[in-house]
Amino acid sequence: MPTADHATGSYPRTARTTPTRAAQRASWDRERVHGILDDGYLCHLGFVRDGAAVVLPTLYARVGERLYVHGSTGSYPLRTASGAPQGLPVCVTVTHVDGLVLARSAFHHSVNYRSVVVHGTARQVTDPAEKAAALDAIVDQAIPGRSADCRPANGKEAAATAVLAIELTEVSAKFRTGGPNDEPEDRELPHWSGVLPVSVSTGAPVAAPDLAAGVALPSYLTAQRSTNA
Amino acid sequence: MPTADHATGSYPRTARTTPTRAAQRASWDRERVHGILDDGYLCHLGFVRDGAAVVLPTLYARVGERLYVHGSTGSYPLRTASGAPQGLPVCVTVTHVDGLVLARSAFHHSVNYRSVVVHGTARQVTDPAEKAAALDAIVDQAIPGRSADCRPANGKEAAATAVLAIELTEVSAKFRTGGPNDEPEDRELPHWSGVLPVSVSTGAPVAAPDLAAGVALPSYLTAQRSTNA
Repeated sequence: MPTADHATGSYPRTARTTPTRAAQRASWDRERVHGILDDGYLCHLGFVRDGAAVVLPTLYARVGERLYVHGSTGSYPLRTASGAPQGLPVCVTVTHVDGLVLARSAFHHSVNYRSVVVHGTARQVTDPAEKAAALDAIVDQAIPGRSADCRPANGKEAAATAVLAIELTEVSAKFRTGGPNDEPEDRELPHWSGVLPVSVSTGAPVAAPDLAAGVALPSYLTAQRSTNA
Repeated sequence: MPTADHATGSYPRTARTTPTRAAQRASWDRERVHGILDDGYLCHLGFVRDGAAVVLPTLYARVGERLYVHGSTGSYPLRTASGAPQGLPVCVTVTHVDGLVLARSAFHHSVNYRSVVVHGTARQVTDPAEKAAALDAIVDQAIPGRSADCRPANGKEAAATAVLAIELTEVSAKFRTGGPNDEPEDRELPHWSGVLPVSVSTGAPVAAPDLAAGVALPSYLTAQRSTNA
């Protein structure tokens, strides 16, 4: 879904994607945004219900310039998006923590992180082919290669699953990298200063106790991964 | 801040803390909620701006039956909470991913997770003593023991930092544990099934290049931690 700004490599800035603070940590760069989204699979989906914000964790996948978000047909945002021809306004946020930044002063403590905030309108995916592809993408976002190695959903299962689609048009990233920004006069204080790296990793796969005989661990699970999810 | 329900060990259920689906995964148990909150330090803060939800990552601490959320005095939610005597309605969500659940069928793929959703009204913390204690708690939530080992904020720094307080009154947890729930008729399919554990860990601390001579790595950083953040 390229937009007019695709050629520039950046998402257009809007009032709500322009931060009120720490503007030097903001980015609208398409490649950076995609990279942050592609490094995760868990998002926090925000919407308004009865005038108040609700924030729920769920799974997502990026497919080009579109996010697919997983839901149940019984959940509020899905039912609302389904019943609203104009869609449901949402905010989708993805955050990775890369490190804890310890400065000599309490004030300069910080976090190295990468986050993306997507503002948009969610529509329910109703086309069966698009929905099947979106669900495959959501599985593969968390476990690349897995969607081709499991039984596809049957009709009843597909009907019990819902997917929301949000176009990536109003998007921004924020990030911090590097060490502590201590005040020059604090440098000789006797407090350790530096960065404690943080990462997400996967452990050894635990097979289901009733795994059929002869089913080997698939290659997409044999390589340990260490990414921020 | 004990409420009338404190004695029961559970938060009272309300319309918005009662899930529309997967009710067997919901909990209002105070101890469980506290445990999930205490295992993290990053939350996703949701609020309504110009009629739409906004979800931003930030740091938090739990102190008894209260959450403190970190912000800048220039940020929208802080400015809004500051200017609104009645406070700013917010939703604060904390999520830990514990594992990816691979079923033989695409439909039964799932995530082992623990999450807490807090609905409430954020007030800006203005009392200097409460604010200082809250900022210490936010530092210690991420790095236990650190607040006592750094230079406290001076007046200018304290003024440039803002803290929101949200009482834990309308709160629920959701979680999933265990292996895949495959259909009996799928058990003989030739697809690996089981759980891929996911965890957050910290790496070897990286000292600031200008660390003063003789400053040793503090004991609270020498033990590797492996928690979900």
